[in-house]
Parts: sequence; structure tokens; C-alpha cells
Amino acid sequence: MHKQSIGIGLIGFGVIGSQVAKVLTEKAEILADQVGCPLVLRKIKVIEQDLTKPQINEIGRQYFTTDEDEFFSDSEIDIVIELMGGESPALQYLEKALSNGKHVVTANKEVIAKNGAGLLRMAHQNNVGLRYEASVGGGIPLIAPFQYELVANKINGIYAIINGTTNYILTRMAIDGIDFSTALASAQRLGYAEADPKNDIEGIDATYKLAILTSLALQSEVKPDDIYHEGISRLSASDFRYARELGFAIKLLAIAKRKLNTIEVRVHPAFIPQDSLLAKVDGVYNAVLVEGDLVDKVLFYGQGAGPLPTSSAVISDVVAEARDIYLNVKNHFQIKLNTGVVIRPMSEIKTRYYLRMTVADRSGVLSQITKVLGDHDISIASVIQKEADKVNQTAEAVLMTHPAGEKAMKQALEGLSHLEVITEIGNFVRVEA
Amino acid sequence: MHKQSIGIGLIGFGVIGSQVAKVLTEKAEILADQVGCPLVLRKIKVIEQDLTKPQINEIGRQYFTTDEDEFFSDSEIDIVIELMGGESPALQYLEKALSNGKHVVTANKEVIAKNGAGLLRMAHQNNVGLRYEASVGGGIPLIAPFQYELVANKINGIYAIINGTTNYILTRMAIDGIDFSTALASAQRLGYAEADPKNDIEGIDATYKLAILTSLALQSEVKPDDIYHEGISRLSASDFRYARELGFAIKLLAIAKRKLNTIEVRVHPAFIPQDSLLAKVDGVYNAVLVEGDLVDKVLFYGQGAGPLPTSSAVISDVVAEARDIYLNVKNHFQIKLNTGVVIRPMSEIKTRYYLRMTVADRSGVLSQITKVLGDHDISIASVIQKEADKVNQTAEAVLMTHPAGEKAMKQALEGLSHLEVITEIGNFVRVEA
Repeated sequence: MHKQSIGIGLIGFGVIGSQVAKVLTEKAEILADQVGCPLVLRKIKVIEQDLTKPQINEIGRQYFTTDEDEFFSDSEIDIVIELMGGESPALQYLEKALSNGKHVVTANKEVIAKNGAGLLRMAHQNNVGLRYEASVGGGIPLIAPFQYELVANKINGIYAIINGTTNYILTRMAIDGIDFSTALASAQRLGYAEADPKNDIEGIDATYKLAILTSLALQSEVKPDDIYHEGISRLSASDFRYARELGFAIKLLAIAKRKLNTIEVRVHPAFIPQDSLLAKVDGVYNAVLVEGDLVDKVLFYGQGAGPLPTSSAVISDVVAEARDIYLNVKNHFQIKLNTGVVIRPMSEIKTRYYLRMTVADRSGVLSQITKVLGDHDISIASVIQKEADKVNQTAEAVLMTHPAGEKAMKQALEGLSHLEVITEIGNFVRVEA
Repeated sequence: MHKQSIGIGLIGFGVIGSQVAKVLTEKAEILADQVGCPLVLRKIKVIEQDLTKPQINEIGRQYFTTDEDEFFSDSEIDIVIELMGGESPALQYLEKALSNGKHVVTANKEVIAKNGAGLLRMAHQNNVGLRYEASVGGGIPLIAPFQYELVANKINGIYAIINGTTNYILTRMAIDGIDFSTALASAQRLGYAEADPKNDIEGIDATYKLAILTSLALQSEVKPDDIYHEGISRLSASDFRYARELGFAIKLLAIAKRKLNTIEVRVHPAFIPQDSLLAKVDGVYNAVLVEGDLVDKVLFYGQGAGPLPTSSAVISDVVAEARDIYLNVKNHFQIKLNTGVVIRPMSEIKTRYYLRMTVADRSGVLSQITKVLGDHDISIASVIQKEADKVNQTAEAVLMTHPAGEKAMKQALEGLSHLEVITEIGNFVRVEA
């Protein structure tokens, strides 16, 4: 016997939550066609201060509650959509929903990144579904492809631009030649960066998303804390000038790479070839390049955030879950975890490096630098440029190395910092080809 | 009660078929993990001449049969994978499989484009699944996103590079400055184009794929014959030179655009802005840009053909279908067809046009051309260049128009062809911005 309708409970009524409520209402008819029966919004769990929002009246005040128990014990709710964000109390809410036998759809990257495996186990034990397509890349299909369409592949690499805030800032720096703080201020003015931008600009947000994608790709449990991360604040306008001259763009890349039986997972700014597709991903757009043994390279591109794209992903999850409920699918896909995945320590990775230094403007400087690098088995591929500063009698030296170990590079940087001829080590950036 | 194993029957043992058989064998263990029980290859239906292939012995001669009845009546086959290609007898085979209660996975774009709606109905009547992810874009997830991840969207546009052969040829023409026939010969040498390349270079193959995508996007039945198509053979090396100067690339685009209550569906060469992502899609790669009301623009990119990427899509379909069988999902997603979709006649579309003509090298020519165009309400955005041919006393004139109706443009071209000062109308190409 099919259900006559499927009840929806919504947690959170911010920009995303109110957009999702709007889509559920405005697209009720076509969504019912997709599912087989109507999706009916039953209740919206909000915090006290939400009750003053004008949209409350559009939806109808009777749908709203601040009472947890009233919400979670509502037997008419089949699917709980969690859109409040943050780890607590969202995690407790998700656990409560699952243990009460509710199917769950969430856009919460932090909760899924940190607790995904446990929540999926709990969903399976309770014979309900847990979907989180909106947690990475907004409306871009990224979770489902790993669970379904790429499932025949051994995934060997992920190269992702998955933080719109930093990509907007880097794009402004690249195009307008402005420095980091000016670009950040512009992003904040436009609402692309928060007042406290740390989570985005330090790469922490990207580690959440990479943890989710890597866990899916490897069918393993990779946590945000397993992922090395480095932010974009050290990048200067001059780095972008040199990058362009060298044929590169600079992007905050989230990288997962399979190397034999280990996996490299890291988030940091990277030089990538100007003519690569990822280099063309500008502004708040996101893109994820996936390498699989069968499919070779596939790339997914789109808006990584915003209420409309995010609602697209949330609603698609709701429809998928509702179809399962309508069709009486009792068993849900259970991720089988590989436990043998070893994270490669950051010190063991090997890449090319871009190195920018302020040096004394006199002869013999380069040979001293070359000597220090050579002592750590690092050879120089090219010396790019020197811009002399007549007043301070310094110049800017930019080097590209051949592939070198991270550990050796860090030691070499330490060595260079003691050279009397080097005024400052401006920046070093890894290169991904 | 779960099944202990799921039986697979394969039709066709060419490059794709043998690759799929190989993956089923070599990845048996991880596929079983994905499904819940083993996928067991039961039988391969081949034609007589396949029996001499050496790979037959690798798989085991006992799996092969040329006998249709033996194959379709095998009760141990749950899923039939059809990889023979072409319309007949593939269509009859698919119908036979479905009516015998077999689930079907196919990579056959021609059969699905021409008969998809009927086959899906038949699958639903027989309570089995029909999947065809590999029919468009090789290993790029393209079918599933329309059925699942983008399902909340009203799809307003599709802009696709979905024929690798023509994209390889156009890329060679653009980069190497060679003419069409040289580039085609190179594609043929490399195996990217067939000895009879008509289906690809005339845009027919692209109409199959666009019909499939548009039918999914609009939940309607759009047939290849509904789609205007124009091939790439008229393009010259000079068109690429002018395009580059004007800031454009030239691609064979498959386009579906919603305009009020009508839909434009067409395949033809198009000028697209050089800095657009689609312009960067080179060689045998494919890309599909989808515009949805919620998701805005999303793009999918990857290898559109080849045994490995195609096997990725085929196997993912097999796994999805096998999961449903294993989980006893008896009902399958049924596409609900919109019957009110009206295809807009080609004569009613409106675009900008690029126009290249050989004209008499004397004054007053341009005003005559402008007059003819003006008589049809077509205004010129820019006149680009004239390369004089001293011997013949001719010059090459290249115009870009403002947006104009196709009908007016065709009439204007007719008018221009009668101008005594025009030696030849070299080419005209539509512009998609």
C-alpha cells in the first residue's frame, strides 16, 4: 500500500531554510509528480528569534515551533530536513531524528564531515535514509556521483575548488591585482565572506567538504582533522603576477590523491596550469575534478553556495528519499567502510614549489640560495625574476623547483631563513600539474 | 529474502562489450560489496564472427552463444546489458528482454533516442528497470542527474559538446590552422572518426544524444527528427582565424532552450565566447552545461566515449539495477511525460550571426550588403576584416550581426547571393553567448 502523502519537518529557517520551504510550497505539484504522492510540510523547528521574521506569516505561523519535543515526536513527519548548520545542537537533532525513525536530509557539512560514518550507521540501524547532497558544492551533483554513477571506479584523485569565498577573493586578486585584505573586504561587503572569515580563508571549510568527498571516494572514514590545511592570507598581489608570467593560476585546492596504499589529503593554495579547466573556475563558482581508473577525468562545475542552488540539492535529496518511502524501499544503501586507508603524513608529499624571497641586491646571492636548496636535494627549475628595490638595495627573487619532498623543502626554508642575504621569505606555494 | 547472486547477460562483444565483461570479472569483489551479492556473468550473445576473437577464450567459450532463444530464455539472467549498437536488431532484443522480465542496461543512443519513451513504458509494465547512462557522454554522469539530482529544477537550457569526433576535428582546425578534410583524415587515422564519418560530422549522432537529454530535462518525448542539425564540413581554416580575432571559439553545439511554452532544439556549429568554459573543452572531451531555475548553471565534463569510460557508466547502471533487485524494489521510477511541449520551428529562432563572404575589392560593396541586410531588419554589429586577393580583385568580408531572426537571415542570404559584387558566401555561423 502506498502512502497518501509524505510529511516533511524542517529544522532552521535562515536563508536556506526559508528558500527550501518556498520551493516545497511553490513546486508542490511537480514534486508530487516526481514522488508519486504529495510532500507536505508539517512543521518547522526554529529558534525564538526566527519568530519575528516576516516570511513566517507567508508560510503560516501554525507551522512553526520552538519546541524540540513537539517537533521530534510528530508522527506525521517522515523526513526531517536539517538546515540550521553548525555542529551543536545539529548533531543531537540528527541523532534524535534518526533514532525516532525519521529519514534525514541535511546540508550540514560540519556535522557530516565530523560524524558522517556514525550517523550513516545509525540511519541503517533505524532502517531510514540519510542524505547530504547539499553539504558539498551547493547544487552541483557531487555526493550521488560517488555513491552511484562512479561506483565502478577506483577513485585515484580529487582536485577541488570547494570554497566560494576564497575563490572569489583569489579571483579578485588575480584579475584586479589587489592585495588579500582589500579582496577580503570586498567579499565581506558583498556577503561572500563572513564578518569572522577564519573558517573560509584558513581552509577549514574546505577540509569539511574534502573529508566528505574523500570518505565517499575511498569508502572510508576520513576526518577533517586528518587533513592538512593552509589558508590564503599569505598570498600577495605579486604572487599572482609571477604566477601569470609563469603560466599558472593560484587556487585554494582541496586535494585527495591515492599513492599506493596511502592517501594524501590536503587543502592549500596551489599553482595550477593556466590552461587547465580548474584555472578557469572563477568567482564564487566551485568545481571538482575526479580521477577514476575507468572514467579517467570527470569534472563537475557550478555554484557552490547560495539559497537557490542549495535548495536544488536539498529538494533532490528529499525527492529521492520520498520515492524510497513511497515505493516501500526498506533497505538503504549501506556504505561498507574500508579500514585500511592510511593518511600519508604531509612531510612525505612531493611537489614542485614556487618560492618568493626578498634578497640583497648583489651578486652571489643566487649561488648561496642554490647551495642551501642543493644541500636538501632540491634542484631549481627556473629563476624567474628580480625586481630591484633601489632604496633598500634589495631585489625579489622567484624560484620554481623541480619536484621535491615537503620535509626537505621545510628544512631548506629553515636554512634559507638563516642566510644573511635573504631579507624575507615572502611565500612558498605548492604546484599541482 | 535476498537473492544469492544476480545473473548478467551481455549482448555484443566489441570493444565496449569485452571491456564490460572484463570489469565484471576483475572487479567482481568490489561490485559484490556495492550490491550486496555477487554479479555473475551468465551468457554473452554474439554474432558468428565474434567467436574467432581471442578474448573469447579468456572469458571462457562456454559463456558465448549465437542463439537468441537460448539467451533470452535463460532464467538465470536477471539483467541484460545491450552493447551491440545500431537500431536493429538491438531494439527487438531490448523489447524481448523487457517483455521476458529482464532488467535492461544499454549504451545504445540511437535506440533510446528513437524509442526511449516506448521502451520505458514497456519496462514499467513489466516491472523492470531500463537504464542508459552510457548512451550520452561516455562515463560522465548525465542521465542520472536529470532523473535525480536536478529533479527540483525547471531546466531552461542545455548547451552541450557531445560528439567527440567533431570536437577533435574542430580542435585540430582551431589549434593547427588546418582545413576540415585534413583534420578529418587525422581523426580517421587515430580511430576517432569512422571510415564513413557522416553520422558524426553531420551532427546526427549529436541529435540522438540531445534528444535523450532533452526528453529527460523536459520529461517529454523529443525525437531526433524533431531536432534541426547542421554539420561542420562547411567550416574553413579562415573561420577559425576570424573567430579567434573576434574572441570566439567554434564548437558543434547541441542546444535545447526553453522559450516561454516552446523549446528550441538544434545542433550546429556555433561561435561561443573564448573565455567560456565550453570553449576550453578540447579534443575528444565532452561537456554539458545545464541551466536550471534553482541550480543556475552546472557543467559536467569528461571523456565522451571509449571502452573504459563507457564501461564505467554501464557498470554503474548495472550496480544501481542490481541494488534494486537485491533490495526487492518492485516499482521503478516512471517518467511522467509532458505532452504539451512544442518544438519551435528553426525559422523562428533568433541569434547573432557571423557571415564570411568573398566580395569584389572595390568601394561601395559594403553599402550594398548593408542595404540587403537592412531590408530584412538585420543590423551589423561589426565588420571585421578584409583580406584582399590582388589577382582576383576580390576581398574577404566578415560581418557580425546583431540578433536577427533565422528566417530573415535566410532571406537576406538569398538576397546577398544575387548581388553581383558578392563572389561567394563563404559561411555563416550562429553565435551563442
